[in-house]
Amino acid sequence: MAVFIDENFLLESTVARDLYHGIAKALPIIDYHCHLPPEAIAENHQFRTLTEIWLNDDHYKWRAMRANGVSERYITGDASDWEKFEAWARTVPYTLRNPLYHWTHLELGRPFGIRDRLLDTESAPEIYELCNRLLATPEFSAQGLLEQFNVLVVCSTDDPTDSLEAHQRHARNSRAKTRLYPTWRPDRALALEDLAAYNDWLDGLEARSGVAIASFGSFLEAMRARHAFFHELGCRASDHGLETPYAESYRPSEVERAFDKARSRKELLGQEIAALRSAILHELALLDHERGWVQQFHLGALRNTNTRMFERLGPNTGFDSIGDWEVARPLARFLDRLDRSEQLPRTILYNLNPRDNELFATMVGNFQDGAIPGKIQYGSSWWFLDQLDGMEKQLNALSNMGLLSRFVGMLTDSRSFLSYSRHDYFRRLLCNLLGNDIKRGLIPDQREMLQQMVADICFHNANRYFRFGLPAGAAPSAGAA
Amino acid sequence: MAVFIDENFLLESTVARDLYHGIAKALPIIDYHCHLPPEAIAENHQFRTLTEIWLNDDHYKWRAMRANGVSERYITGDASDWEKFEAWARTVPYTLRNPLYHWTHLELGRPFGIRDRLLDTESAPEIYELCNRLLATPEFSAQGLLEQFNVLVVCSTDDPTDSLEAHQRHARNSRAKTRLYPTWRPDRALALEDLAAYNDWLDGLEARSGVAIASFGSFLEAMRARHAFFHELGCRASDHGLETPYAESYRPSEVERAFDKARSRKELLGQEIAALRSAILHELALLDHERGWVQQFHLGALRNTNTRMFERLGPNTGFDSIGDWEVARPLARFLDRLDRSEQLPRTILYNLNPRDNELFATMVGNFQDGAIPGKIQYGSSWWFLDQLDGMEKQLNALSNMGLLSRFVGMLTDSRSFLSYSRHDYFRRLLCNLLGNDIKRGLIPDQREMLQQMVADICFHNANRYFRFGLPAGAAPSAGAA
Amino acid sequence: MAVFIDENFLLESTVARDLYHGIAKALPIIDYHCHLPPEAIAENHQFRTLTEIWLNDDHYKWRAMRANGVSERYITGDASDWEKFEAWARTVPYTLRNPLYHWTHLELGRPFGIRDRLLDTESAPEIYELCNRLLATPEFSAQGLLEQFNVLVVCSTDDPTDSLEAHQRHARNSRAKTRLYPTWRPDRALALEDLAAYNDWLDGLEARSGVAIASFGSFLEAMRARHAFFHELGCRASDHGLETPYAESYRPSEVERAFDKARSRKELLGQEIAALRSAILHELALLDHERGWVQQFHLGALRNTNTRMFERLGPNTGFDSIGDWEVARPLARFLDRLDRSEQLPRTILYNLNPRDNELFATMVGNFQDGAIPGKIQYGSSWWFLDQLDGMEKQLNALSNMGLLSRFVGMLTDSRSFLSYSRHDYFRRLLCNLLGNDIKRGLIPDQREMLQQMVADICFHNANRYFRFGLPAGAAPSAGAA
Repeated sequence: MAVFIDENFLLESTVARDLYHGIAKALPIIDYHCHLPPEAIAENHQFRTLTEIWLNDDHYKWRAMRANGVSERYITGDASDWEKFEAWARTVPYTLRNPLYHWTHLELGRPFGIRDRLLDTESAPEIYELCNRLLATPEFSAQGLLEQFNVLVVCSTDDPTDSLEAHQRHARNSRAKTRLYPTWRPDRALALEDLAAYNDWLDGLEARSGVAIASFGSFLEAMRARHAFFHELGCRASDHGLETPYAESYRPSEVERAFDKARSRKELLGQEIAALRSAILHELALLDHERGWVQQFHLGALRNTNTRMFERLGPNTGFDSIGDWEVARPLARFLDRLDRSEQLPRTILYNLNPRDNELFATMVGNFQDGAIPGKIQYGSSWWFLDQLDGMEKQLNALSNMGLLSRFVGMLTDSRSFLSYSRHDYFRRLLCNLLGNDIKRGLIPDQREMLQQMVADICFHNANRYFRFGLPAGAAPSAGAA
Repeated sequence: MAVFIDENFLLESTVARDLYHGIAKALPIIDYHCHLPPEAIAENHQFRTLTEIWLNDDHYKWRAMRANGVSERYITGDASDWEKFEAWARTVPYTLRNPLYHWTHLELGRPFGIRDRLLDTESAPEIYELCNRLLATPEFSAQGLLEQFNVLVVCSTDDPTDSLEAHQRHARNSRAKTRLYPTWRPDRALALEDLAAYNDWLDGLEARSGVAIASFGSFLEAMRARHAFFHELGCRASDHGLETPYAESYRPSEVERAFDKARSRKELLGQEIAALRSAILHELALLDHERGWVQQFHLGALRNTNTRMFERLGPNTGFDSIGDWEVARPLARFLDRLDRSEQLPRTILYNLNPRDNELFATMVGNFQDGAIPGKIQYGSSWWFLDQLDGMEKQLNALSNMGLLSRFVGMLTDSRSFLSYSRHDYFRRLLCNLLGNDIKRGLIPDQREMLQQMVADICFHNANRYFRFGLPAGAAPSAGAA
Repeated sequence: MAVFIDENFLLESTVARDLYHGIAKALPIIDYHCHLPPEAIAENHQFRTLTEIWLNDDHYKWRAMRANGVSERYITGDASDWEKFEAWARTVPYTLRNPLYHWTHLELGRPFGIRDRLLDTESAPEIYELCNRLLATPEFSAQGLLEQFNVLVVCSTDDPTDSLEAHQRHARNSRAKTRLYPTWRPDRALALEDLAAYNDWLDGLEARSGVAIASFGSFLEAMRARHAFFHELGCRASDHGLETPYAESYRPSEVERAFDKARSRKELLGQEIAALRSAILHELALLDHERGWVQQFHLGALRNTNTRMFERLGPNTGFDSIGDWEVARPLARFLDRLDRSEQLPRTILYNLNPRDNELFATMVGNFQDGAIPGKIQYGSSWWFLDQLDGMEKQLNALSNMGLLSRFVGMLTDSRSFLSYSRHDYFRRLLCNLLGNDIKRGLIPDQREMLQQMVADICFHNANRYFRFGLPAGAAPSAGAA
């Protein structure tokens, strides 16, 4: 057969091809938000099989397999690596038009170099063997893969109580080409729905921070200590996974009382939970502002919908979907409260329900303060939306209602070392959008301006925005200020 | 003029034309949900005029006529058949870009064979006469039309208290080519807003089932008896028309008390109504699961908005529109409760508000259990969305977030014997989407895989999913398992 | 460089070019809703600089500048006209893919005749000087510009307490080519959240109407007097800016009591506010119906989200965005209550959250009464949606769910005398949609029908709908009835 994904995949015009091959393709990657395991990076993990690297943590693939009638044994059960791979290969042809079909073949192409066949039951044995052989080589270790993909920075996702031992170890490894920074993800600081687990977590925080947590004040003190420690290890961003922002009014005394109740495991009222969460979220934003961090919000996921499977497999196993909460007013209130005292950090808002794309794209415009270009960002398409249609809609909403030129661009948000192909996907799509606009006469063919724009969105904007302090030599020469 | 809707209508590529003419076009139709009157099928009704078959029950056309300034006399009033047709013909040119413009000319083309002119006041008399002449022939009787359209199965929509006499009669007619099965539509079992009407309905259920209804338990028993009777007559699916799913928590005693109040016509509290509805919906799903039926949910319609016209014409007369209820959490709760006890039936969810397309497309993925491919379906575009743009959006959301290959495809959901053209519309659109994807390099041109996919979506998936037990000879040779 | 926006901008087919150049382009404009200052029209204001006419009131541009990191001094501060213009010119290249990029160059092209260069820091001085020179000429006065743009009617937006002195003065100016009518915008009649300001406004209404306002009844009497005065000056439409419609149930006595409390500055309960607002909105609609006016609703804006900047700059300064309220049920209730007594005025509904486009497009169909073609209108894309993508989505939703042919078309809704380019934008887009449909075989190439449709949407429908009573000679010969 003809090559399916060739060098001009998604590039439908000369301009698109020029922009991609001339500019986008060679730029390094700053992966400012992902879920890669820091341990695997630090120890430079070598993968056993294609099943391990591709299927063991990928709930996207698990959902597709379940929908295709594959039994759990071949997904998360005790089937062998080969059996699981074979079940996946059987499913792949049924994923036609799903992003998995693209990702699968993009990843077979790069890094594995397999471009002349499609994955199905027939090609499965050969592909499995070939990939497994490659996975045994140094170029396909955790660090080897990051290097192949030209990843300058990886930001993992870490609980405030994490030791960050792997990050420290990796920082001392002078041969590693990719920097590894933690991201401060304090979801558990807001998880008041289970007070036993909450107090266990507070105990851990106490132990890790060395601060006895007996009041709301000392809780914040402990968090501040950890925040400082994260900062020392290069962390420059927080991240929150929320259904909808917490932004209720509260009085300090009310919050203190609610925290005391929580700490002594007394059931809170709905209003107390709302007040306490709103206060904590606000205080965490103040910490981020104080240290010049970026705060990120992943909004709109309805999680753990399937109780039977949750009890069996736990969270992040493929039973989450898109929610439909009110978002405009609480989000505006949350941002406004910070802006009033001029303590609103640089902020990225990620939206999971595409019906709210335009709402988000206009919301960020309410809090741009004229001091930092693109201070408030409408983040790239996320999770279920992280595919051609979803990314195109996000780029169009952002373009129509804000400044695409100031966009910090793509992140993987992935648990897999192979997902860097998504950056390639994004870059092709971006170049293609611009190329099509020119074909239709919607934008002028000012090639230099477009080249700068592409370079900014693919690399320079994120580099300037996150302030990781990459050495001058590490990155290509900077773009426009 | 040139023919407007020719054989390659909507087919913009060679691949699309090959897939449609080679595969899709000749496949028979399983119309697994519609509102055709069983009586008209059983008695093989012959239509008086084009007005009778085209305008008498078509509230889509009525809305268009009202929007065009046509007075009610020519819509639902006492004007003659010709006067009504003439008013419609006058409206048709104003429907340009509305699906009615396509449906009208698709239906004139097939079955009436009129392809060389457009309907307007000028062409109206000739078209009216020609169609009326054809409608007097056996090929245009109710059964004749179903045969012309190659419809293997029609599923009507029936109240649990319906006698199903017409279905029995039709089943005995050995010459009829199209099977007629009932669908269990228990909307009135949930219609607690009018207790007088509710009790009348319960009285009817009592009479029909032979079970005295004096408690929640005996109500369920009566329903179970009718459910069994529907099953005997070939029913394999239920259907519910709801604003939003009922999925509140309830205690059995609370539900029993609420039912007792309802049965004795004592006004229920809001919470009692919610609990009772939630319990009934759950119990009905258990019945469906027990008998291996498919449950269908048509969600999101805001009905009977116009009081003045409702009082004059009753429901389903063109005064309904799209609602905006919260859907993610109640829908997840409803499905989860059934899944917890492993009693979730095969389920199709139809969505009326396109803003929730992606929500639905991801929701179904939460409850795929790996036992039945495509067990939970995101159903085809419905009502106002049953047009090119709406269908394309549903297909794209399903593709991006699920497995298009496992889709059970199109249904008419119509009150008209001429609406089978919509299957043709759907099939052309589907082939065209795939053809365009190939043109853009988004999917590989694996022709055999695509042919199988098209055949599955147009026929085999529905055939496997609904288990009507068609004889081997009735359908084309089965597709992939 | 090649000309960016040439005569065939947005016109991608021969049919589109024929329809635009042959029909749409030359039609005059009825700007039935805008925010132009009546005073500037009446006094035929001559603009000082491009900054004054382009930047001084344009919060779209302000938002873009803030997002681009421009400090407030150069936006609303004390920088010089040139400094502000230069800051804007620096921002323009960063607006690529935003409608501002199109509007900017459309407006430089017409009326300024600058088509051979793009605005950026380099071209800024020359463009500034050239435009300023033109702005000093009579053709670029307020009236001169309206004449250049072929604007027959401008409807400003006016509070019931406005004197309308400018409107009276302009009506006496026999040389003015453009008619100026007021629009009745009673937002402040509903602004019960600040009772001090509300009572000040009532005092003004009292003074202006000569009716002492001591009860709900006398309040309505005062409003009726002003309504009559607006009518005398040619007003034929009202307009409301609301988050979501007010349509609660209320008893007259409850409303009267609530008004008495408000008038004596006693804090109202939530339910009292809801009842009073619902009653006022209903009564205002009755006034509109009585005089045969059109009522307009701009729904869905979340306003004044940024407290810090609101306190500094006030409303309408670029800190508003898209809200997400429930709309279907209240909107249906509001319209139904009027329709029940057959007192529903002609109504235009504008929607700001594109997720609700289809909801709006179907809602209008519920209240078409068959007496007036297109009586209830789904209005053109508004504010953030007033761009190619937003307008195309509105036109498509309207087409799919209603009658595009009966659409009253475009309005500017702008504060700028240069925004008439948006009519040109809309007309090009409309012609292009039709042309593309023909290319794809979706509509037949019935040229005469299409020409009539374009002429109706661009001019005749609005002319018939608003009943401004333009003299026969003023407008092109009328279209189809």
